[in-house]
Amino acid sequence: MSINITVWGENVHEQKIPAVREIYPDGMHETIAAGLRQDPAFTVRTATLQQPDHGLTQEILESTDVLTWWGHCAHGEVSDAIVDRVQERVLQGMGLIVLHSGHYSKIFKRLMGTSCSLTWREAGEKERLWVCNPGHPIAQGLGAYFELPNTEMYGEPFGIPTPDEQIFISWFEGGEVFRSGATWKRGNGKIFYFRPGHETYPIYHNDTVKLVLKNAARWAAPEGSRWIDSCPNVPVGKAPEKIVAKGGVLHQPGEAGFK
Amino acid sequence: MSINITVWGENVHEQKIPAVREIYPDGMHETIAAGLRQDPAFTVRTATLQQPDHGLTQEILESTDVLTWWGHCAHGEVSDAIVDRVQERVLQGMGLIVLHSGHYSKIFKRLMGTSCSLTWREAGEKERLWVCNPGHPIAQGLGAYFELPNTEMYGEPFGIPTPDEQIFISWFEGGEVFRSGATWKRGNGKIFYFRPGHETYPIYHNDTVKLVLKNAARWAAPEGSRWIDSCPNVPVGKAPEKIVAKGGVLHQPGEAGFK
Amino acid sequence: MSINITVWGENVHEQKIPAVREIYPDGMHETIAAGLRQDPAFTVRTATLQQPDHGLTQEILESTDVLTWWGHCAHGEVSDAIVDRVQERVLQGMGLIVLHSGHYSKIFKRLMGTSCSLTWREAGEKERLWVCNPGHPIAQGLGAYFELPNTEMYGEPFGIPTPDEQIFISWFEGGEVFRSGATWKRGNGKIFYFRPGHETYPIYHNDTVKLVLKNAARWAAPEGSRWIDSCPNVPVGKAPEKIVAKGGVLHQPGEAGFK
Amino acid sequence: MSINITVWGENVHEQKIPAVREIYPDGMHETIAAGLRQDPAFTVRTATLQQPDHGLTQEILESTDVLTWWGHCAHGEVSDAIVDRVQERVLQGMGLIVLHSGHYSKIFKRLMGTSCSLTWREAGEKERLWVCNPGHPIAQGLGAYFELPNTEMYGEPFGIPTPDEQIFISWFEGGEVFRSGATWKRGNGKIFYFRPGHETYPIYHNDTVKLVLKNAARWAAPEGSRWIDSCPNVPVGKAPEKIVAKGGVLHQPGEAGFK
Repeated sequence: MSINITVWGENVHEQKIPAVREIYPDGMHETIAAGLRQDPAFTVRTATLQQPDHGLTQEILESTDVLTWWGHCAHGEVSDAIVDRVQERVLQGMGLIVLHSGHYSKIFKRLMGTSCSLTWREAGEKERLWVCNPGHPIAQGLGAYFELPNTEMYGEPFGIPTPDEQIFISWFEGGEVFRSGATWKRGNGKIFYFRPGHETYPIYHNDTVKLVLKNAARWAAPEGSRWIDSCPNVPVGKAPEKIVAKGGVLHQPGEAGFK
Repeated sequence: MSINITVWGENVHEQKIPAVREIYPDGMHETIAAGLRQDPAFTVRTATLQQPDHGLTQEILESTDVLTWWGHCAHGEVSDAIVDRVQERVLQGMGLIVLHSGHYSKIFKRLMGTSCSLTWREAGEKERLWVCNPGHPIAQGLGAYFELPNTEMYGEPFGIPTPDEQIFISWFEGGEVFRSGATWKRGNGKIFYFRPGHETYPIYHNDTVKLVLKNAARWAAPEGSRWIDSCPNVPVGKAPEKIVAKGGVLHQPGEAGFK
Repeated sequence: MSINITVWGENVHEQKIPAVREIYPDGMHETIAAGLRQDPAFTVRTATLQQPDHGLTQEILESTDVLTWWGHCAHGEVSDAIVDRVQERVLQGMGLIVLHSGHYSKIFKRLMGTSCSLTWREAGEKERLWVCNPGHPIAQGLGAYFELPNTEMYGEPFGIPTPDEQIFISWFEGGEVFRSGATWKRGNGKIFYFRPGHETYPIYHNDTVKLVLKNAARWAAPEGSRWIDSCPNVPVGKAPEKIVAKGGVLHQPGEAGFK
Repeated sequence: MSINITVWGENVHEQKIPAVREIYPDGMHETIAAGLRQDPAFTVRTATLQQPDHGLTQEILESTDVLTWWGHCAHGEVSDAIVDRVQERVLQGMGLIVLHSGHYSKIFKRLMGTSCSLTWREAGEKERLWVCNPGHPIAQGLGAYFELPNTEMYGEPFGIPTPDEQIFISWFEGGEVFRSGATWKRGNGKIFYFRPGHETYPIYHNDTVKLVLKNAARWAAPEGSRWIDSCPNVPVGKAPEKIVAKGGVLHQPGEAGFK
């Protein structure tokens, strides 16, 4: 079974900031996509903010099993209509992997319903990510922990709803901790937030990070069917038990509800 | 300790539809407020869509411990800025009780992150609400179940994230079931969804419904402190452990992050 | 990939009560196994209370991907040592499907940590199981609901921890409701409780029930690796960061902890 | 409102090991109790393993709102009958605060259903506990974090079901992290696990630790009513909807179910 992955990248700092372009000459999205392409079961394409519909047309999303999301300075430029569209597909079962500064993306905040805030420091310090559940699909092939020599720090409190499962917790050289890998299900879509990924460090060139992303994409792939959620009226004559309508009504037979 | 409750009402069908006005001559919000005022520990005021800021100014929300929300045909007329404001207060700890057709309100969908859809039928059928946890604060004073002789039916599937606790499940005469009472916590705010409340029946005049709402308001009142969630930078010099900055940076010292 | 399923049956009422034997002449476990064998990807064997180790030797459990559990009158005769063994395998990733009266089995109560109690009535009444999440793997191939013409009733309150996902809720002819299909994860094991299955009705001959069990077995199959959970000491010299031991100690180097 | 707290202590190492006795001359339970007695709303008594019924008679438990549990080397000596009794009271609404090495106590493993294992190191290293939710009642009066200069280390993976809320995560000098404060609800009982507390360090003399325990006891106090959970039969004649019994039955009218 092939898994269709769309790697979404904001693609702004790579264009504007030489230090970032040096690390990611083709854009961060292309490096992330290249890592995923190591798995022959994946069919991987990329999409960026600058494309029409930010590269996320209805057709693209319909044929996407797993979407990865990296954004930072341009969250506000993502159109609400596209966010609606992505949310709808997640509820239908598309997997979503939200990366690093994507904690503040419209789509992540939309799906969480919370502030998604945190504390942060840009000091190139060491991060050690501990595996909280070594048997979890996302942690396959990892040891008890893995380290990144230089990272931006994200610290607790992280303004999220309680995750379904805690996969990683980070230890930072400067003394903080963070829930760096966590999962949620919303509708039938599996969501994974993964913390590493600051654009001034070569995080997405790291082999262990690539492994986590491959594991996560496999885990997030849809299972079950695509359910188009709606709010259907059940006419009196179609009730499972025979009933006779009583009392006042607002709606005429066949009328749609308010939305 | 007094609990400050604001009862929000859309107040449209009461004005337009004689059958609704007959049941709720002062508006549904006033009937709901009157039920809550039976508890001397509550200080209750009302607010409606038609007022400036929909009656939900920053000052009103700041001094609200628990907000109840009833809306139906005019969800789309609620301003996004007010929804932002209400969400912020919920995350800070304000309780929120969402009633009946409020399942499709902007604020409920915002906090859940899902479609919040369901199936429905307007046939005045009987509903029996079973208590799933008789020891829960919201179920105090109830028996194993209570009945409403005439209600609109809401049926599964209900498009919500898994609740923290299931309080009521409904049995309908026409053969459906529904998760009619459920709780979630988002940030420090407690959220309770309560299904009954169609405007063509005198649901909010029912003594058991009043009891549930009083219990729920008491349960939803803030505990803990009001935490103003933000995304603060921790300068290198303020790290708990001594560190020396290494590697590239995006931000100048003291600069705010992207949002 | 083949999935190894072990169907465990208490096998007491089938031997003692003619009305049960008539419906399940080879025992309920054989009927359940036959239904699962319809899926060529499954390798299915059975085990019963009366066998040495209740048919659940270490070897059998090691090679079991999914265990189904039906018991009723003889929960107390299941040895605690075997319950320990089954629990350990669930935590390592073996799926567990608990059926009907298995709500009071030692293994289900052990994994839930709660009373698992409910209300009940034996009146051969109609049950309608509503699908709460039509996109879920366990609900594939079902319509909005399915019916069983004659069942024992189980009613709320059901003494369980909040499920991870609600799959089915039942409507009963006599007026009750029940959370009839629910999932939990404990360790790396997926657990599904499925309500239908009273021994005086031919529930496990029903095609829809067979379909649900096949779906559930596929869903519950292990993913990830088998993690043997332990409580290892990390010697000072093996700490990820260099530290020097300070203060008093209870344990000599290399000593195991208390358990 | 007064809250009745029972502080349970294993009271073995205090008797046997001079280094522990020096820090806790009256036993760890008395130090923990003294800290809680700082709050005039609390009525605090202690109970130990060596007393009849381990000091936890039915009468004591009936009148206990919150039980704290510290044990380490003698978990196996706690009688299963007393564990049954404590579990029953938790399900009825009694709060339970499990301390440090109590992660391996029978009562905690019973309520969690999992291994509750972790990694550990006894090196007197520094621990910094970060607050994951500053608005939570258990975190009131704390800053962003607090530190303990000398602690035993506990590290991830921690073999627990996903907590309802994450209150603290620890950073250790030696490089590990741990979910040091977490809550669950089982039945109507609130459960809080709090990590610090090794007997060779004066942890329970620490003012911040005392504050956390006072906050936690207040949070864990019962709300709602005491529900005695059972498995009652609903006779056909008492069904909410009129039904006529059909099909085979196992039980005579009035007979109890199997357990």
